[in-house]
Amino acid sequence: MIQIEALTRAAFAPFGDVIETEGAAHYPINQGTTQRYHDLARVVAAGENGRVLVSLFVAEPRPQPLTISMLERHPLGSQAFYPLQDEEWLVVVGTSPSPQALRVFRASGRQGVNYAPGTWHHPLIVFAPASRFLVVDRGGDGVNLEEVAFEPVTIAISQRHTRA
Amino acid sequence: MIQIEALTRAAFAPFGDVIETEGAAHYPINQGTTQRYHDLARVVAAGENGRVLVSLFVAEPRPQPLTISMLERHPLGSQAFYPLQDEEWLVVVGTSPSPQALRVFRASGRQGVNYAPGTWHHPLIVFAPASRFLVVDRGGDGVNLEEVAFEPVTIAISQRHTRA
Repeated sequence: MIQIEALTRAAFAPFGDVIETEGAAHYPINQGTTQRYHDLARVVAAGENGRVLVSLFVAEPRPQPLTISMLERHPLGSQAFYPLQDEEWLVVVGTSPSPQALRVFRASGRQGVNYAPGTWHHPLIVFAPASRFLVVDRGGDGVNLEEVAFEPVTIAISQRHTRA
Repeated sequence: MIQIEALTRAAFAPFGDVIETEGAAHYPINQGTTQRYHDLARVVAAGENGRVLVSLFVAEPRPQPLTISMLERHPLGSQAFYPLQDEEWLVVVGTSPSPQALRVFRASGRQGVNYAPGTWHHPLIVFAPASRFLVVDRGGDGVNLEEVAFEPVTIAISQRHTRA
């Protein structure tokens, strides 16, 4: 049973960036009508014909109890997810693709993440139906996906996330 | 007095991309739990040390009646805006930086835009306080901002947007 951690920049630093206004450098633009929280993710699109993609994902909740039985990674590029509704979601990463190496973070509806290239992570885990995300990742040639399966591990979900 | 148009891919094509799920190609990923609406914006980060930035903007409404008296453009890169609340906002562009060349589009809270490099556009115009946007644009060296001022033009705003 894996416990869930709060998502903070410090805790997530080994895996990539937390995209949030909280604690971020910012400055006024547009005649003072707008604050720019600047440059929150290191975007990488390496490899042959590598380019940056902007996409929208619409995700459905997974069955509960929630189990993790695989991780994936993208060696040639970063991958950023930003939620488009104010609902919590889960970020699952690993220092290696094994049950013992898993870390699970609870992200708020105002926190996105950017997985650094090569970071082992689980595909989207959401609690609200039709959860929408803006995604910034890499297109191009070459193999940019590795997946590893392992014995399922259960994640301890709090009561308020059992509605799915 | 400029009239407001609906934001559609066809109408906006001379200026860049509309980022929305509506009418976009998509396919299932993540064991069928997620739909990916793929590659919705042509991201450009040209020039010396050009790189792609991910930032958050928080914008306040402007005084009404709303007047437009300048446009700007970014010759070295694209600039994408996606709203993080389900509230309408305005997209103002021009085929040239002059009052006669203005086009004004009403975007929904589920429509983003990506200005193509060199597209004349107005900074963010929102109606809800503290409107948040995810922005994908260009960092690097060189001059990536041009601004042109002109005589103010009033935009005809509908009643429901006069709360600011």
